[in-house]
Amino acid sequence: MSSECKCIIFIGDGMGGRPVPSLGQRTTIEAASTPALDAIAARGESGYLHPAGIGVPIGSDTAHMAILGYDPFTYYRGRGPFEAKGVGIDVRPGDLAFRCNFSTLQGRVVTDRRAGRIKSGTDQLAQAINEGLRDGIEGVEVIFRQSVEHRAALVLRGEGLDHRVSEVDPHEEDTDYWECRPLPEAADDTNAVRTARIVNEFVARSSEILQDHPVNKQRAAEGKPMANAALPRGVGTAVDLEPFELKYGMTGAMIVEVDLVRGLGTYLGMDVIDVEGATGGADTDEYAIAKAVEAAWADHDFILANIKAPDLGGHDGEPLQKIQAIEKVDRAAGYLLDALDWGRTALLLAADHCTPCGLKDHSGDAIPVAFCGYGVRPDAVVSYGERACAAGSIGHIQGPDVMRVLSSFAGRAHKFGA
Amino acid sequence: MSSECKCIIFIGDGMGGRPVPSLGQRTTIEAASTPALDAIAARGESGYLHPAGIGVPIGSDTAHMAILGYDPFTYYRGRGPFEAKGVGIDVRPGDLAFRCNFSTLQGRVVTDRRAGRIKSGTDQLAQAINEGLRDGIEGVEVIFRQSVEHRAALVLRGEGLDHRVSEVDPHEEDTDYWECRPLPEAADDTNAVRTARIVNEFVARSSEILQDHPVNKQRAAEGKPMANAALPRGVGTAVDLEPFELKYGMTGAMIVEVDLVRGLGTYLGMDVIDVEGATGGADTDEYAIAKAVEAAWADHDFILANIKAPDLGGHDGEPLQKIQAIEKVDRAAGYLLDALDWGRTALLLAADHCTPCGLKDHSGDAIPVAFCGYGVRPDAVVSYGERACAAGSIGHIQGPDVMRVLSSFAGRAHKFGA
Repeated sequence: MSSECKCIIFIGDGMGGRPVPSLGQRTTIEAASTPALDAIAARGESGYLHPAGIGVPIGSDTAHMAILGYDPFTYYRGRGPFEAKGVGIDVRPGDLAFRCNFSTLQGRVVTDRRAGRIKSGTDQLAQAINEGLRDGIEGVEVIFRQSVEHRAALVLRGEGLDHRVSEVDPHEEDTDYWECRPLPEAADDTNAVRTARIVNEFVARSSEILQDHPVNKQRAAEGKPMANAALPRGVGTAVDLEPFELKYGMTGAMIVEVDLVRGLGTYLGMDVIDVEGATGGADTDEYAIAKAVEAAWADHDFILANIKAPDLGGHDGEPLQKIQAIEKVDRAAGYLLDALDWGRTALLLAADHCTPCGLKDHSGDAIPVAFCGYGVRPDAVVSYGERACAAGSIGHIQGPDVMRVLSSFAGRAHKFGA
Repeated sequence: MSSECKCIIFIGDGMGGRPVPSLGQRTTIEAASTPALDAIAARGESGYLHPAGIGVPIGSDTAHMAILGYDPFTYYRGRGPFEAKGVGIDVRPGDLAFRCNFSTLQGRVVTDRRAGRIKSGTDQLAQAINEGLRDGIEGVEVIFRQSVEHRAALVLRGEGLDHRVSEVDPHEEDTDYWECRPLPEAADDTNAVRTARIVNEFVARSSEILQDHPVNKQRAAEGKPMANAALPRGVGTAVDLEPFELKYGMTGAMIVEVDLVRGLGTYLGMDVIDVEGATGGADTDEYAIAKAVEAAWADHDFILANIKAPDLGGHDGEPLQKIQAIEKVDRAAGYLLDALDWGRTALLLAADHCTPCGLKDHSGDAIPVAFCGYGVRPDAVVSYGERACAAGSIGHIQGPDVMRVLSSFAGRAHKFGA
């Protein structure tokens, strides 16, 4: 029986926060109506999670790595590989990978970082880049692939590439795009110098290819911004991560809206499940996500689910928007409380990080968490929130503890010793 | 005065658990009548212990190593050395050691893993093995020694032995015993291949010796199963562990029923004290154990005591049996509360691991603990149990913390700095 217990990590992205003056110094979780999240805490064991250690603000990619037991301090070499894997490129250890935007240039000036959020034709543009650069650059293979709208990824494959190079995308408009350079600490490194030169050559030659492409001539004729550049950023070296199923002996599914995290799931060999209605926005269909978790429960041992909306409210600095998003997370949790067999499920309710509205960015604050279901010994905490969970029996845990504790509750952990 | 304060670790083996439906979701500790354990918590500081880290299910051997401050991740190389030390063999660093069972074979089929729980004559059988193999096997010295009933241990001493070899004892009956092989990760390792060959040779030659031994001829004549094989398992490499007294500057005694843990005590140079009436079973004499602790208190600085019975109830999945065993632990604790000088005693009440009845095995759950006696600052916790101790002032501690905290309470720790 215990060997059949399923494990779920259910994440409200960026859900944690800080006291908000306009909410009477309550946090957005504390101000939201969250009967299901409270029920999880009441039936479970609560505590604080610090994915990468106390006081470390963490990204979504590094947080999910840490929570899944892949130490980001050891294995994280930039987001690029997850982006590239997320758009479907067969990334291999040693590859250098970048997120790219199709952008609009006038000369070297970026007039639109997202090329008018171009909706169609990027497959043809990507094909043209791959064909035009089929002989590679300085002996390095070039692999480029479009994703949704203006999004794309670039992989460079070959000997002697170095990730210590700067961004090309300037992250703002009406300014020149940046020349790729070796980072100061690698200024004299032959590989970093060569890598920067290859990236710059990629930008120059892909821009030439895109400038005269029929898709862009058509866009120009329609008065739309041309997608006449592909600007790399988020460089990363692909590392060798043990597949999830090998590492834990559990089949794993990921039901997540964030491309970057989906890329991590693909990278780990998990089933990354698409959900119709999961938009990644404030309008996402939380019941569709919950039903997808219910369906995945039937044929997977482990599921990680993440609803993105709360993080958006935090980044936007909009407490009311964030509260509505948290209530979406609560409704999804409520569905699962009714739908799942809790004699065969151990669940962790968590956020991947806090995104306080006052900060409009990720903080290093402790994340409230609650384990419930099979194996737990309910503690005295009866509601889910930043202050309530501080008194829970789990205490303070870090990323590497999460899968151990969840596996232990589920009776799936191996005994060390006799 | 403080230099004379004694330290005691008092363990109810596997005493921790999870909520039990038939007990109204109380744990067995919570359901048991434990006035003495509650008094320790009420007079003391409570918390949670994770011997080898949060969420790690741990064995009795590794747990006791961790609690005594010998990091099992560094020093544990299998149970064999503790088994061998426990039966009185002078194990030395580098030795390869095994637990053995005298078993009954018909051809290669194990018909009785315990040779009818043979009661007498095993000393003569062991002597015959040692004499028959006095020239060793492939230059490796063979040392074999009987223990109680069917139990025995084997030590191989020589160059180039490797512990990465498989079991011979098949752990079930009416099946062939297993051929010893190098483990998959050491399949091509010369030493592992040679070690497996030596183990197989030991099994073959010891079986020949035993088959014709007068003790077995007598057993056959009486219709008893012959002890015509000695089947190794639980291989381990002996490592160099600093003796307890050297490490802590305290004379140490161990009053423990589990052979494996007694072996660890012997290995660490502690006085392993035999107690008449301490059976290791549900019928053990808890007062005899408590009186032995009282006696050892007079002439030792440190005592580790362990009552095995609660663990048996957990493994058997029998809550009422476990409750009775916990009440035995309570009575022993009550005796000590009356008998000892608490102005000169710092005590930790703990389990080595949790053995929930629902799991019938060790879990990675937090272990409730309470320190009482000299030096403590009593907290608000007034009863001992899985949920009550979560609120204690000790918080969450791990194996390496235990001896530090206990020594600190006792005023025996050395100041770091000026």
